[in-house]
Amino acid sequence: MRYAIVGTGAIGGFYGARLAKAGKEVHFLLHNDYRYVKERGLKVISKDGDFALREVNAYDDVNEMPPCDVVIVALKTTKNELLKQLLPPLLKPDTLVLLIQNGIGVEADVAAMIPQVHLAAGLAFICAAKNAPGTIRHLDYGTLNIANYNGSEETAQKVAEDFNEAGVKANTVDYQQGRWRKAMWNMPFNGLSVALQAQTDSILANEYSLQLVRDMMNEVVAAANGYGANLSEKDINALIDMTEHMRPYSPSMRLDWDYYRPMEIHYIYHRAIEEAQKVGVEMPRMKMLESILRFMEMRRLHL
Amino acid sequence: MRYAIVGTGAIGGFYGARLAKAGKEVHFLLHNDYRYVKERGLKVISKDGDFALREVNAYDDVNEMPPCDVVIVALKTTKNELLKQLLPPLLKPDTLVLLIQNGIGVEADVAAMIPQVHLAAGLAFICAAKNAPGTIRHLDYGTLNIANYNGSEETAQKVAEDFNEAGVKANTVDYQQGRWRKAMWNMPFNGLSVALQAQTDSILANEYSLQLVRDMMNEVVAAANGYGANLSEKDINALIDMTEHMRPYSPSMRLDWDYYRPMEIHYIYHRAIEEAQKVGVEMPRMKMLESILRFMEMRRLHL
Repeated sequence: MRYAIVGTGAIGGFYGARLAKAGKEVHFLLHNDYRYVKERGLKVISKDGDFALREVNAYDDVNEMPPCDVVIVALKTTKNELLKQLLPPLLKPDTLVLLIQNGIGVEADVAAMIPQVHLAAGLAFICAAKNAPGTIRHLDYGTLNIANYNGSEETAQKVAEDFNEAGVKANTVDYQQGRWRKAMWNMPFNGLSVALQAQTDSILANEYSLQLVRDMMNEVVAAANGYGANLSEKDINALIDMTEHMRPYSPSMRLDWDYYRPMEIHYIYHRAIEEAQKVGVEMPRMKMLESILRFMEMRRLHL
Repeated sequence: MRYAIVGTGAIGGFYGARLAKAGKEVHFLLHNDYRYVKERGLKVISKDGDFALREVNAYDDVNEMPPCDVVIVALKTTKNELLKQLLPPLLKPDTLVLLIQNGIGVEADVAAMIPQVHLAAGLAFICAAKNAPGTIRHLDYGTLNIANYNGSEETAQKVAEDFNEAGVKANTVDYQQGRWRKAMWNMPFNGLSVALQAQTDSILANEYSLQLVRDMMNEVVAAANGYGANLSEKDINALIDMTEHMRPYSPSMRLDWDYYRPMEIHYIYHRAIEEAQKVGVEMPRMKMLESILRFMEMRRLHL
């Protein structure tokens, strides 16, 4: 299968580079790093072992890329408006578009934007950063779960197999459960890390913010179960336990805030709250956190 | 009637000084400013006209004060544990204790602490500060509503009359309505001014935080009406309109935060949430704000 990577940042770069290193045909769309990667390739500094790709199929124009069997979208959701232009040149009738992105509702919105597209969600559990051109630092974890949305289950399965061959632990999972389970972690920790200006460890160490995290996770459980995701208190305990065992961590929204990038408020909060409302679930704490984040962002931008 | 002022800060100092200036017998309990006020009296710099009291009945020990007909408590609620010691020496069988304090549940807790005490709530709508020893700056407003809790309605009425004679606009109001209406303003603006590090004007200028204020006020309306206070959307609109016409304002909790004093989280949030729960009303946004404030306070104190 031929792969395209749309958005060669830390996530797209890491997963794309692993596939390429395993001999898969991968075409990378780049923006800022295009010249650098075209000339010097990609470097991955990983806790599983460093490696470099000298020759990379690098592009700065999607119209020069070949149609692919799998298109991996690893842009920030704040740039999803671009997909209207970026995706069509890459699509064949059966292409699977794998959205490795945060939030709830991304697949529904991309499906509405591009008729007949076949979508799956990529749920990455990884700690990675790109802190120099063409250089990805893979710090911890790395699992990628693949949740078919409206594509073919076999293609999703084949993608998972390709990733496993490439040394990435990948499974196929239920769409609603996969997306909402990720939201269960993302929704409390991303926003609170900005609103409280705190990392995961201090959020968990304080009895009040810990209880708040639990209350917020319960809002997600209620919404998720409205979509048949079958989550429960047990999943909450497991996620909190896992986070307690992680090293102190700044979620992506906190990094976006710290580096003056737009935050993914729309998909991590707004759309999730909307989708919850559709099944009759109110998320008052999430709404409040969304308001706080929007206030912070608008004040900083002097809007 | 003979008055005692327990807690001669901006609020106790202002209302006590007005009564004394009008010829009422007023005994002031002081702490930090005792020596200064004993020697030089009290000064009020007021938008209604400045005045000074050269001779003041000043005390630093409640046991030297005479029993009074009305005891005005104007301490921060964070010091209410002291009332166990401070009140008994001042009480006659019919003494009315007027708590000019923030929050919900203060009267219930003082009643439990001191059996047979007669209580009323003093609901001050005033902008005042004490920024030098014995010197109170009265910046705006000044109304004092008096809500009888378990005392005599006539005494409450007489206190209101004394205040009106002293140039303070004072009315008697229903207890539940008075307390909860004040909470309707206090609960959103006090905490958000700290959590968002913003004054009233910027909170109202942002569509998201404005909606949040409305949602929080609705939580108060629900709780208040559980106690028969008969508040509604109309009261919300009136309060927001009033706040929009105020000059940019830092509520008392924000000043406490800025000056490294303990915040009145217990009575403004915790007890209010508890009392709401007793009538079956959940306050998820208030709980969340309480958690945020406790997190901020504990982190600052390195607890």
